[in-house]
Amino acid sequence: MEVATEERLNKEGRRAGPVLAKNSSQAIISPSLAESRELADRVLAGDRRGVARLISLIEDDSPEACPALALLYPHTGRAHVVGVTGAPGTGKSTLVGQLARESRQRGLTVGIVAVDPSSPFSGGAILGDRIRMQELTGDPGVFIRSMATRGSLGGLSYATGDAVKVLDAFGKDIIYVETVGVGQDEVEIAATAHTTIVVEAPGLGDDIQAIKAGILEIADILVVNKADQDGAERTVAALQLMLELNHQPQGWQPPIIKTVAVEGKGIEALSREISRHRDYLQVSGRASLLRQHLAEEELWNIIRKTLVARIMDKLDRAELDQLIRDIADRRLDPHTAANNLIAQILE
Amino acid sequence: MEVATEERLNKEGRRAGPVLAKNSSQAIISPSLAESRELADRVLAGDRRGVARLISLIEDDSPEACPALALLYPHTGRAHVVGVTGAPGTGKSTLVGQLARESRQRGLTVGIVAVDPSSPFSGGAILGDRIRMQELTGDPGVFIRSMATRGSLGGLSYATGDAVKVLDAFGKDIIYVETVGVGQDEVEIAATAHTTIVVEAPGLGDDIQAIKAGILEIADILVVNKADQDGAERTVAALQLMLELNHQPQGWQPPIIKTVAVEGKGIEALSREISRHRDYLQVSGRASLLRQHLAEEELWNIIRKTLVARIMDKLDRAELDQLIRDIADRRLDPHTAANNLIAQILE
Repeated sequence: MEVATEERLNKEGRRAGPVLAKNSSQAIISPSLAESRELADRVLAGDRRGVARLISLIEDDSPEACPALALLYPHTGRAHVVGVTGAPGTGKSTLVGQLARESRQRGLTVGIVAVDPSSPFSGGAILGDRIRMQELTGDPGVFIRSMATRGSLGGLSYATGDAVKVLDAFGKDIIYVETVGVGQDEVEIAATAHTTIVVEAPGLGDDIQAIKAGILEIADILVVNKADQDGAERTVAALQLMLELNHQPQGWQPPIIKTVAVEGKGIEALSREISRHRDYLQVSGRASLLRQHLAEEELWNIIRKTLVARIMDKLDRAELDQLIRDIADRRLDPHTAANNLIAQILE
Repeated sequence: MEVATEERLNKEGRRAGPVLAKNSSQAIISPSLAESRELADRVLAGDRRGVARLISLIEDDSPEACPALALLYPHTGRAHVVGVTGAPGTGKSTLVGQLARESRQRGLTVGIVAVDPSSPFSGGAILGDRIRMQELTGDPGVFIRSMATRGSLGGLSYATGDAVKVLDAFGKDIIYVETVGVGQDEVEIAATAHTTIVVEAPGLGDDIQAIKAGILEIADILVVNKADQDGAERTVAALQLMLELNHQPQGWQPPIIKTVAVEGKGIEALSREISRHRDYLQVSGRASLLRQHLAEEELWNIIRKTLVARIMDKLDRAELDQLIRDIADRRLDPHTAANNLIAQILE
């Protein structure tokens, strides 16, 4: 890794934990709750700018975000969260746009969270895509937000999960989360969705197929988009084969849906499958298990952040810097250093 | 997300933190050090099976791994770690194979860590690639290891970093870490490398280019592989433009190297750039800053894991389950629950 300037190193150091965690500590330990409460109230009252502001605070890991999220938490758990994941070039942004339109036609309010710098929702894609999205951005029943990638480990998936909670408390009926479908963080984000759609497209090569072995495990619905292109049937057949190899005798059987998102083809069928999967989760009791699983993850994430923040509150920065130099120069191993720090502070 | 069976939910719950952390806690708090010490000795004595065994323990987050890593730590910091990252289809595995051969010809010992289920090093790719790799797998101066993807947040990047440390202590001169170039975890893994190579190939589409805006930031060397194919010059030009847009007036200027890895073309030039970057890190003092940065990350990671483990040691599982149900059913918010748990245990 290149460390271009000292400033950049500091920036990375900051993203890496301590200062980031310190902020959330201040939020929890010495809460000046007034602003957080006001922000939560604005979200619950349907104020779009309040929503935007709170998500920005979440992205920045700002001290006001945590108490606001705590206040909103009882109002969450109502939205259906649909993860849409797929490699670049599969057309998943267009698909999300069409699904959002379909949901609006059925009278549902919609949230869209894009975790992909190349998504038109992030302003990162070609102009044509962005123009297609304008119909959605002008609709008060739709709230679109793209999440910036932060360097902190797992920071993006925490922040995305919290942004979804804000839109849930804001009252959105269905929330689409768009992610690029490779990488652990992507898998984590998909894992917070109730229904996960994995998007493929013809002709993206066998390597893509191979990597999808991991991604397929999280798929509740498989989509072959650009189904009017050459090779679509071959992609469908490859996915079918993979599903057969992974066949579970019981439970949900992931369907494969063909779509041509730019023309709106197959969107209704896909939308029906999403509803069918939602019903399945409820009837089978999976919804309740999933809710408990997500609650446990959330609890541990907050505990980890808070404990690190407590250490930072009591620690002398000069002392920490000396420790770090000792570890970097191999005079001390990090396991011993960690145990000493913990012992010193907690006992 | 589909939760297919209760067993699967439990598996995911386990990966999510608590039990994982509990193991490392036992390692630190009640060390039965004999096996760990023996394992560390075997690694230092050059025993390949000892290395393989320790990396497996790391993957499983087994209690013996932590003290063994602590013992090996003073023997690390010597290897040059080269991250090779790129989208599926760019031919990065072949490139790593060729770089490894080139390093061997210069008399260096080589470690390869593949973090990609579709890599031939993981046995996941087409037969031709795997046959090409056999020359390497039979060489005692080369140690190849593929890392399995675990579900835990950041688990893969911790485990990969630790595997690299083992190969470093094992005495490998240069360690190549191959990752798929999309996703946060990938970026984290790349960030633990001294030199990061980003591999592109012609004709992978503009979407790929767009997404690389983030990946480019971590590139010390850019490679356009498959440079004999149509569109190679266009890819080079696009990268050049991006570099100009991101131009830093001082410091390392990432070069763009054209290769045809299957024919071994451009490998020598690439290898020279790797050496040149290594020299640059030393002379500029960046190597020392980078070492401190990595030491700090390492320290905080261990602290986080250990503190969570302490909570789990003292916590009643039934009590935790009740808390989780309360959070899942929105009777309690996770921030309040986390603070109560911490207060109860630490104060």
